[in-house]
Order: sequence, then C-alpha cells, then structure tokens
Amino acid sequence: MVVTPYYYATNITQDVLKRHYTEIADRSPIPIILYNVPPFSGVRIANDTVDLLSTHPNIVGIKDTTGSIVNLAESVQNAARNRQLAQQNKRFVVLAGGASSLLYSLLAGGSGGILALANILPNTCCRLFELATSGRLAEAAALQNAIVRINELVTAKHGVAGLKAAMDLLGYYGGPPRRPFAPASDAVRNIIKECLYELTAGGVTEATPSRS
Amino acid sequence: MVVTPYYYATNITQDVLKRHYTEIADRSPIPIILYNVPPFSGVRIANDTVDLLSTHPNIVGIKDTTGSIVNLAESVQNAARNRQLAQQNKRFVVLAGGASSLLYSLLAGGSGGILALANILPNTCCRLFELATSGRLAEAAALQNAIVRINELVTAKHGVAGLKAAMDLLGYYGGPPRRPFAPASDAVRNIIKECLYELTAGGVTEATPSRS
Amino acid sequence: MVVTPYYYATNITQDVLKRHYTEIADRSPIPIILYNVPPFSGVRIANDTVDLLSTHPNIVGIKDTTGSIVNLAESVQNAARNRQLAQQNKRFVVLAGGASSLLYSLLAGGSGGILALANILPNTCCRLFELATSGRLAEAAALQNAIVRINELVTAKHGVAGLKAAMDLLGYYGGPPRRPFAPASDAVRNIIKECLYELTAGGVTEATPSRS
Amino acid sequence: MVVTPYYYATNITQDVLKRHYTEIADRSPIPIILYNVPPFSGVRIANDTVDLLSTHPNIVGIKDTTGSIVNLAESVQNAARNRQLAQQNKRFVVLAGGASSLLYSLLAGGSGGILALANILPNTCCRLFELATSGRLAEAAALQNAIVRINELVTAKHGVAGLKAAMDLLGYYGGPPRRPFAPASDAVRNIIKECLYELTAGGVTEATPSRS
Repeated sequence: MVVTPYYYATNITQDVLKRHYTEIADRSPIPIILYNVPPFSGVRIANDTVDLLSTHPNIVGIKDTTGSIVNLAESVQNAARNRQLAQQNKRFVVLAGGASSLLYSLLAGGSGGILALANILPNTCCRLFELATSGRLAEAAALQNAIVRINELVTAKHGVAGLKAAMDLLGYYGGPPRRPFAPASDAVRNIIKECLYELTAGGVTEATPSRS
Repeated sequence: MVVTPYYYATNITQDVLKRHYTEIADRSPIPIILYNVPPFSGVRIANDTVDLLSTHPNIVGIKDTTGSIVNLAESVQNAARNRQLAQQNKRFVVLAGGASSLLYSLLAGGSGGILALANILPNTCCRLFELATSGRLAEAAALQNAIVRINELVTAKHGVAGLKAAMDLLGYYGGPPRRPFAPASDAVRNIIKECLYELTAGGVTEATPSRS
Repeated sequence: MVVTPYYYATNITQDVLKRHYTEIADRSPIPIILYNVPPFSGVRIANDTVDLLSTHPNIVGIKDTTGSIVNLAESVQNAARNRQLAQQNKRFVVLAGGASSLLYSLLAGGSGGILALANILPNTCCRLFELATSGRLAEAAALQNAIVRINELVTAKHGVAGLKAAMDLLGYYGGPPRRPFAPASDAVRNIIKECLYELTAGGVTEATPSRS
Repeated sequence: MVVTPYYYATNITQDVLKRHYTEIADRSPIPIILYNVPPFSGVRIANDTVDLLSTHPNIVGIKDTTGSIVNLAESVQNAARNRQLAQQNKRFVVLAGGASSLLYSLLAGGSGGILALANILPNTCCRLFELATSGRLAEAAALQNAIVRINELVTAKHGVAGLKAAMDLLGYYGGPPRRPFAPASDAVRNIIKECLYELTAGGVTEATPSRS
C-alpha cells in the first residue's frame, strides 16, 4: 500500500500522482494498492486519476480514506466499467479506510477495509464484514451504528494516541505514540474505557478493558 | 430550513452560529430545520454545535449536506442521547442532503432526505426510501448504486445547470439556471440524456427523456 | 465594486467568474471594479482570470483582499504587460484590501486602497498613502508597522463588531453590527480602546477614544 | 531549522506543535529556527504559538513562509513585546520565506530571508537586502518588483523542477528533482530562460543563461 507523496503539497498535481504511481507500479515486484488519505496527507487522488491508474496491470486496488462514500462508490463503478470495456479480468478492489462506514462501503461495492479499529476490536470488525456480505443487513446496520462512537474516539477525536490507549486498556501492547504525539491523558483514557465497557455490557463486543 | 450565514465566512465561528440559530428559533412562529452545507456556504456547523442546538424546543432537525455519513451518524446518536438525558419526547430529525447516500443515511438513523434528485426522479427517490425503511435492504442497495451516476451529474458535476437540463429532458420545466451559472452545454445535456436512457433501459426508472 | 458570487462555492469555477464579470461589465452604465476576497466569500478570482478580465474596456480595477502581496504584484505586472501589448491607454488599478499592508501594496505597484481602517483612522490612512507615494519610505514603513495591531483588532480578530466598537469609541456612529454578528464584548472594547490610546500617546494618530 | 511535522495533519494541533518544538529545543545542542510553511506541509504554526515558543531560550527565530506579510509583521511585533516584558536580550529573528516579498518582510521588521531564489540569483538577493537595509528604498522597490516573475516561475509555478532547470541554465548543477517531481519540460525551460535573459538585458541581474 503506497500513500501519496505529501510534502510540497501545492505542487503535487494529479499529473505528478499519475506518473508517480505508474513508475512505482512499473517497477514493483508485487502488486500495489493506492492509499488516498487527504485528511492525513493534505493530498487527494482525484477520481479521474484513480480511474486511469486502475487500468494499470500492477495496481490492484485503493484504500479510500476520503471520508466520502460517494467517492468510493464512484471508484467502484469506474473500475467495473473499465473492466467491461477492456474485457479483461483484472480486479481492482476498493477498500474502506474507516470502520464507521464499513457497511456502507461494502454496500457501495467495496471489497473490504483496512481499519484502525481492527487493532482493538478485530472480531467485531470481522463480524460486521460477515453480516454485511452474507445479507444480514439489518444486524449489520445495528452493529455499524454501535461502533461509531468508539471508532471516532480512537481515530478522528484522539488519533493514534487514543488507539494506543485503547490497545493498552484491552491487554494488547499499545505503548506511547510516536512523536510529535503525546500519550492520551487520563481523562481521555477514561472516556475510552467507559465506552469500551458500554460496548461489552451491550453485548456488542467481547473484549473488556483490563483493570489497570 | 435555515442555511448558515455565509458571507464573512472567516468570522462565522461556532459561537456566532449558536447565537444566530437560537435567536431565529426563539422568534420563529414555526419550528426550524438547520441546513449544514459547507460545500456551498463555506461554513460548517460543527457537531458539538448541532448537539447543543438540537435541545432547543423550536429546532426540530437538520439537513446534513456535509458529505460525511459518519458526521450524520454522530448527529443522530447525539440527539438520541440528549432525548434520553432530558427524558423528553422532543424529536430531532436528521435529513440526508444527497441522494447518492440516502440509503446509508437512513441506515445510520436518518429520518429522510431533502434531495436535488427528487426534482427529476421523485418516484425513484420514494422507492429507495421505502425499500430502505421496509427492510428490503439488498434491493435498496442495488437501487442506491444505480442512481449514483445520475445524481452526481445533476449535482456535484454540473450543478444547478445540470439539474435544470435534466428537468427539461424529462418534460418538466427546468429552464435556465439563475446567474452566475450558464445553461448546460449540449455536450453535458447529451451525457445526462444518455444516462437517463440507460436508467430507463435498465428498469431503474420509469421516466424517459423527451425527444426534443 | 462587484464582489464574486459566493453561494454554491464549489460550482463557481473560473469560467463562471469570467462570464459573470463580462456580462456585468458589458451592461453596466459605469465602469466596474472586481472584488477578490476569498476570506469572506470562499471564492477566489485566479490571477489568470484577473489578467483576462483586466482587458475588458469597462473593467477598470480590482480590490485585492487575497492577503498576498505577491498576488497583487502579479496582477499589477500582468495589467502593465497587457497595456503594452495592446498599445492602449486603458488603466487597470489594483487596490489594496487591507491597511496592514497598504505600503507594500503601493510599492508593488498598487494604486491605492479600500480600507476598513479608514472608517476609524481616515487621516492616518491618508498620511500613510502620502508618505508612500511621495518617497518618504522610511517614515511610511514606521507608520505602516504602527497600525498593524489596531487594524488586525478591527478586521481579522474582531471583524465588523470590532470595527463598529472602535467607531463608537472615537465618537463616530458605529452601532451594532448586522446579524449574525453580536456587538463586541466589553473585554474586546477595552482592548481596542487601550490600543487606540497607545497610538495617540505615541503620536501615531490624532483621534482619541471618548470617555464613554 | 525544523519544519513542522506534517503527516496526520488533522491531528497536529497547536498543542502538539508547542510540545514538539519545546522538546526539540530543550534537547538540541544548538539553537533552533522554526519553519512555518503551510503551503508545503498543510500545517500552520499559529501566531499565538509562535509568540509562546519565541520565549524559549533555545528557539532563536522562524522562517515564515505563510505568504502573509501581516502574519510576519505580527510575529516581529510579538517578539519585540516579549523581549521588552522579559527585559532580556534574547533575540528572535523572523526570516522571509520568499524572495517576492523580501523587501516588505524587511520593512515589517524581518531580519533576513532563506530564499529559493538565492540558489540562482544570490547576488541579486544580496543586493536587494542591502538596498532595503541601507535605506535606499526606492531602488529596493524597483528591484523587488523586477524579480517577482522569475521567483514565481522557480517556486509557486514550477516548483523544485523549475528551480533546478534555472540552475542548469545558469551553469550551476541543478540536475533532476527528486521524485515524485519530473524534470521541467522544454517549454517550461524556455520560459525560464527567456525570463532570465530579460533580467540580464534589463540590467537587473548579472547572470546569463548558458547556450546549452
């Protein structure tokens, strides 16, 4: 998975991205996946660029963390049209970048997800995927809604520090985040702990925060 | 429905929005709905602000056109929590702002939508709503995906001009868009017409573009 | 002076702006001045667009509130080149949009300014203009630096409310700002008053806040 | 000189920046200079943060590439006020980040510049500095205006590739830019060459592009 370049953001045009990914894909011994994450990188791979790159034989997918299901749906539909036009069997998978909309990404034609939340609630993420892909959509929707809050706490709201605190709470090794980020404060840690307890109490997740 | 103020965008803080909507709601003879549309207005009502305003007795909902289902889901969950805390029956409806993600908005707890697409395909929008709310989710998902392209053509891609061209094509009166926008070009008009034909041919919609 | 359209910001492309201003200029009985103020409107007239519009016989200038002197300098130089190419005498004036950089705008070739600060310190603004344009540049620079703080207080920091408070303090009629903005708080009013006293004490300005 | 961290841009709050720079300054064996370059990094050090960091004994300056002279002027004035308040002699230098506004930065109280243009026209940059700081302001303004176009060509318009092409043209070793950027096209190279010729013909610069 290859993130966009991000320094000199104002000079990283769509043409720069096209050439950059093409050069990498031409030379990579293994297939590559694009990583489109404007909230972290400040650079966006436009859908027309994704459309063009999706036809490269060595580019097999994209992780879409644009935050827009519509954007993801358009990528899926463009890739399907290209496959039809080219009468080729090349696959191009579109992967959700966030657990808070995994169900919607799958309904929009996405193939799966690469999710921060899977670091703390892997079984829950798998269950959501299985419910969504086996047609148990009402159950999937209930589970999807149940995990929005914890997911936002360990991503958008408290970032890597929040995620690592949650890992610590659940008995994994999270440890301190890399600089420049500081470890989560006790206040944040308690909010996350309480949210995890509620999820277990509600039967949503199996994991329980440790006593520490 | 009351759009955010938008001129002097850099000075329109969340405090300004809180006071502005509170003053309007205090004096309005009828209940009001917030309209959060940063792509048009350049101003965003933050979720904490929505959360606070949702407790006002005369503010009964929001049209969320932020483009983020996660944002919409958080608004729904905040409002539900407030209702529980206050042990009151006040309703606060969250309405989808775009047809391309109506199903996902409904699954996330939204109550409906105020949709540009309903100007040209009202029956299709209603069918999607009914499928989604009657538990026929697989059919709803198929229909949802089928309308993404036409919806983007008449909103994000070609704006009001595209929507009005589609209305003309379907026998409604669209007419020219208000300035500063120009009528859609013939090329755009043809792309929209072709897309509408495909939808009818595919059995997605009933309406057929006129011969004009 | 004609501000850019600003609602539907994402659909207001440079092409829309070119046609919009051309239509207005074609029909206006008096010459027009473009107003480029992305911090307020969320829409930017790109320099290539200014360059093209500057050749229209009925467009005689631009108020540049982009916040970038380099942008302003480029507009000035483009207009000069066009004048030379066309061997015409048409003038195209570039006006500073902010008092905090009036001197630099004038040095970069600007012709003057349309300044919020002139509502409270008109003589000071005129003196700065005269010092800058009569070659007394060291004095101009000292004055320029002296007014940065008051100007930011009544524009970027406290907006229209700050400006109106300052007008009240100096014996003009400011009054309350239009909604959605609230009148400046007493704390803000005191900060502005203190800053105005310092300027008078330092001999920078003649005006003195009233005792009220 | 220490650039802001830039990945995970949405999580890099002003608090993160304060702690980050303080930790570096606490441990650095030599004084550090902040580098504020939102166009490249997507992260901005706010003026209040600069104000606070400027009091650290081991932070001795900032390179301000925000593009706003007003921002630079405020940094200079804040640092001066802090110095006065603390009755200490600690210096905090504010350095221009762009040659197109070097004169204005110096007039606003800046101490110098760290300029891309100095890679190709070092003598011209030095002459501009000397004219500005020795009070020959009219000559400085003329020179300032004369170099805007070449500077924009090798920075904002064509980036590192443009700068390296100009170095090659002037007999220095520029070479290819690092990926993801491609070498300047022949068309861009010719535009730069022509601009350099004009500068020499106009007596602005001594350097002449090579015949290659």
